[in-house]
Amino acid sequence: MSPKITTELLKQLRQVMKNPKYVQEPVQAYIVPSGDAHQSEYIAPCDCRRAFISGFDGSAGTAIVTEQHAAMWTDGRYFLQAAHQMDNNWTLMKMGLKDTPTQEDWLVSVLPEGSKVGVDPFIIPADQWKRMSKALRSAGHDLVPVKENLIDTIWTDCPQRPCKPLIMLDLSYTGVSWRDKITALRSKMAERKVMWFVVTALDEVAWLFNLRGSDVEYNPVFFAYAVIGMNTIRLFIDGDRMMDPAVREHLQLDSTLEPEFKIQVMPYGSILSELQAVGAGLSPKEKVWLSDKASYALTEAIPKAYRYLTPYTPICIAKAVKNVSETEGMRRAHIKDAVALCELFNWLEKEVPKGTVTEIIAADKAEEFRSQQKDFVELSFATISSTGPNGAIIHYKPVPETNRTLSVNEIYLLDSGAQYKDGTTDVTRTMHFGTPSAYEKECFTYVLKGHIAVSAAIFPNGTKGHLLDSFARSALWDCGLDYLHGTGHGVGSFLNVHEGPCGISYKTFADEPLEAGMIVSDEPGYYEDGSFGIRIENVVLVIPAETKYNFKNRGSLTFEPLTLVPIQTKMIDVNLLTQKECNWVNDYHQKCREVVGAELERQGRHEALRWLIRETEPLVRVQ
Amino acid sequence: MSPKITTELLKQLRQVMKNPKYVQEPVQAYIVPSGDAHQSEYIAPCDCRRAFISGFDGSAGTAIVTEQHAAMWTDGRYFLQAAHQMDNNWTLMKMGLKDTPTQEDWLVSVLPEGSKVGVDPFIIPADQWKRMSKALRSAGHDLVPVKENLIDTIWTDCPQRPCKPLIMLDLSYTGVSWRDKITALRSKMAERKVMWFVVTALDEVAWLFNLRGSDVEYNPVFFAYAVIGMNTIRLFIDGDRMMDPAVREHLQLDSTLEPEFKIQVMPYGSILSELQAVGAGLSPKEKVWLSDKASYALTEAIPKAYRYLTPYTPICIAKAVKNVSETEGMRRAHIKDAVALCELFNWLEKEVPKGTVTEIIAADKAEEFRSQQKDFVELSFATISSTGPNGAIIHYKPVPETNRTLSVNEIYLLDSGAQYKDGTTDVTRTMHFGTPSAYEKECFTYVLKGHIAVSAAIFPNGTKGHLLDSFARSALWDCGLDYLHGTGHGVGSFLNVHEGPCGISYKTFADEPLEAGMIVSDEPGYYEDGSFGIRIENVVLVIPAETKYNFKNRGSLTFEPLTLVPIQTKMIDVNLLTQKECNWVNDYHQKCREVVGAELERQGRHEALRWLIRETEPLVRVQ
Repeated sequence: MSPKITTELLKQLRQVMKNPKYVQEPVQAYIVPSGDAHQSEYIAPCDCRRAFISGFDGSAGTAIVTEQHAAMWTDGRYFLQAAHQMDNNWTLMKMGLKDTPTQEDWLVSVLPEGSKVGVDPFIIPADQWKRMSKALRSAGHDLVPVKENLIDTIWTDCPQRPCKPLIMLDLSYTGVSWRDKITALRSKMAERKVMWFVVTALDEVAWLFNLRGSDVEYNPVFFAYAVIGMNTIRLFIDGDRMMDPAVREHLQLDSTLEPEFKIQVMPYGSILSELQAVGAGLSPKEKVWLSDKASYALTEAIPKAYRYLTPYTPICIAKAVKNVSETEGMRRAHIKDAVALCELFNWLEKEVPKGTVTEIIAADKAEEFRSQQKDFVELSFATISSTGPNGAIIHYKPVPETNRTLSVNEIYLLDSGAQYKDGTTDVTRTMHFGTPSAYEKECFTYVLKGHIAVSAAIFPNGTKGHLLDSFARSALWDCGLDYLHGTGHGVGSFLNVHEGPCGISYKTFADEPLEAGMIVSDEPGYYEDGSFGIRIENVVLVIPAETKYNFKNRGSLTFEPLTLVPIQTKMIDVNLLTQKECNWVNDYHQKCREVVGAELERQGRHEALRWLIRETEPLVRVQ
Repeated sequence: MSPKITTELLKQLRQVMKNPKYVQEPVQAYIVPSGDAHQSEYIAPCDCRRAFISGFDGSAGTAIVTEQHAAMWTDGRYFLQAAHQMDNNWTLMKMGLKDTPTQEDWLVSVLPEGSKVGVDPFIIPADQWKRMSKALRSAGHDLVPVKENLIDTIWTDCPQRPCKPLIMLDLSYTGVSWRDKITALRSKMAERKVMWFVVTALDEVAWLFNLRGSDVEYNPVFFAYAVIGMNTIRLFIDGDRMMDPAVREHLQLDSTLEPEFKIQVMPYGSILSELQAVGAGLSPKEKVWLSDKASYALTEAIPKAYRYLTPYTPICIAKAVKNVSETEGMRRAHIKDAVALCELFNWLEKEVPKGTVTEIIAADKAEEFRSQQKDFVELSFATISSTGPNGAIIHYKPVPETNRTLSVNEIYLLDSGAQYKDGTTDVTRTMHFGTPSAYEKECFTYVLKGHIAVSAAIFPNGTKGHLLDSFARSALWDCGLDYLHGTGHGVGSFLNVHEGPCGISYKTFADEPLEAGMIVSDEPGYYEDGSFGIRIENVVLVIPAETKYNFKNRGSLTFEPLTLVPIQTKMIDVNLLTQKECNWVNDYHQKCREVVGAELERQGRHEALRWLIRETEPLVRVQ
């Protein structure tokens, strides 16, 4: 991977930062966040402005360019990658390290007095704007919105914003009609005495209308906003997608409907002016509900006194709790996904010893097997196919420059998943195709103990996921080991593979309590820089737990694994497991064998079935 | 316990709320927080204003009185007690329950439009003022400071503010001189570019000057403030305490000193005007450092642009990490404390079957045995001596109305501690003097498993205590049980038994990472309303841990129990313990026997020694 040469681009950017055509007054610094106007994690090529200006294309990072400096803030997952991808015009700011300044502190240290710091008000979330603006103001500087995105002005071959056809999901997938979702949303709005709700996150728009798209790779969403009033529905969306008779039928655009369910379709680009009109027409006590992560531009469209901001929207919370149709769909998707992975691992076992399988070939093969499954749509994220030292790069994605050949001497880590019309998968397995060392097995077993500790945990209703994070680390901690990422994230139902408002992390973000029906990942790991990476990840469903007692009638919860892919027993040091842990593995493998075995049988995949049966032989603890 | 009749008092309070002698404009609501002007947890009788107006004398609670209503917010520890102590003029607001409104929401729901809500600006912390003021303002009301405390105006027999003699601690106790503490503080101030530091918490003043007092029961502190400049030291303190030649010598008041160590002694009541003078004389960029929990009155004395507020002060953080002199002192104090408890439990074993020992008698006996130990000063909190159903009242304190007789049929819970000149203790043991039921033993054993899980935990340097909380609950959660309080708090060194900035709790407050030398309690419990309470508490010291590996050279930590009092093996269901847990108990008891046994021997307490030896017999697991 050679770094992107950015000298000329930075020169151009510094020119437009002073060009009165674009800025009212010159800005001494310009911030380029990662996100798009919807604060999406995965973004369309036209929104990859930070990658364009810097070369660094990891999923998280913020660039700031001043007259003299260019600096990039990113987190531990990306220190190596960012250092490789950026030229020496750039300073890497390693977030999470003690001596790394915050963006605000750094700006204050480098800017001349009374500077203006520009940012695209559509890209920066309102909560970030507030924090940064306050810090800059207290040091005598100003954060200013720059209407025209300055990167776009110098990005001559910027790709077009995608505008692909929509997918309609019927009740058998969603369980609830969009009309019922709107009704439920309005009752939440009434509870909080709110008159309007602005849907800004792409997955929230998609979920609300039971539609999916493919404007963004991996996330089945489409560019749109919605504004829901107590009696009106406005959908802001571009292209001729609304000409499709099936879409018109799905949204009942041509039916005679009660007026409160009549959808007004408006151009995507008109959201700001329409919202400003809403803002201008509010009577006292008419509040407008927005996520506090909505863009500064849209938030500012509503006068401050009328805003009702929350970290999680009622759609985000409703979306997280999957109904029976959704959990059944997720189960089906995970069985199909397991079939594909059994095929893959059986194939790898035969091919790896020949020395012809690279990380890219393995990733492609995984996609090929998945694409053979019913209702397959696309991958749910870029496959992490990594062997040996590449496995220690937590968010590694093989590219020709780093592509390594799998061998019988190295650990192979595959973190992959897919979008099926009935569900989203995300699974990591760590395999050895030769003979693992005692140390590799030891580390793998600690990670497995952590995985089991979370998966088998029983906890009271109302518990937040971050309270479970240490369970995943305890076995590693006992030996002085750890991993530098969270343990789990929410997973959407044929939607984003990462979603809020729940998760399992030592970072005590404001997560909502876990509830039956929520779906999260359980993925502890261990990474040895320069040597290997280990991660064991299942997607798990929160379910009620039966307990001997029931303190204050609170009820208890636990997890049911949706992922049903064998965990390589060759990597386990059985004597490090307790009998309870050993039983967990055997029960899990028994279930994989029964459920996935039946599907392999049904699909006539006999060789993979034999592989599955062999890989799910019970462990025996020698005492 | 009969409730306090408050009809007349509330009438008087409502009158002064409109009396122009005390308020510029009538206030429609008046807030009476628990605290004093130093935001102390334990307060002097003259500061018990909330107890005076309501009758409820628990350690935490906020009263709000309006024209029509009187409401009391308190947490789960005090629901029963508050309900017993307050008459029906009062509405109990149970904090932590879903339907309980916040104080702000409740005020907004009951107040007429454009109301004024009064509060004593010395009693309300600045961060609370800010939050409440913002919420009230956004609903069209105003939070206003009422200079004269309105409770004091109607409290005709209010006790005097105490002003007792000071205790000097020499280097053998403190390890560091007050001059070196001032120097270290000034270097922290220089790091943050701060010119002044205002010491508002009583334990911080005491720690900084190596002085102790007895103005507040249980906390060896004295009423004072300090303002530390880069070249000046001002101590605000009343009475003739500064006339004591030993104090003058200790503070070097009459010596020829470098000017930056010359202490100016000023009247306690002059802090506000002196601080206002400091505030008025600041040049640009001269910041003043205060805790964000300092009173609104003192915070407002410094113009906003000059304030530097942090949740924990540098003194709070330095004080938490005990030096060798302090940890050695804490060890000695805990050995003496264990001697007293061995005597007590030996005595109880003989006396309880006679049916003559009440909770109050047992508590008094515990104090008697403690007071026989060297350097005993006073108790460190009100002894929780509770048997049977009283044990389920988490912060129970026996009073004649509730005083129960210990018997061979009920569980007895004793949570007690003392201040010795060399350290502070806090220990809970749960005993049965007859034959515990299988269920009682089962619950006790889950609590013990939780206690051990925390005490034996190994975790990386930099870990915050709240990440360990779930370890204490896991065994209880597995059976559907839990306890509704945190697992541990910081403990001072001959100072407050509860201190920041570290702790172990599911409440993710902004705790500082655990560091070697910090001292916390480890006290999981289980409470069955109406039946019994179980808690097992040790004070533990954070120490470096030896681990097999050392991930990224971070180093690991664990705990060493300072408390050395046997855990009643009769209450343990050995078969619920793992071998590792069983070994932990046996190792712990071995240490109790050796260390405390030697001291019992030295003190010639042979009967208690025999009791100790019997109670520390190793457990044997039958498999």
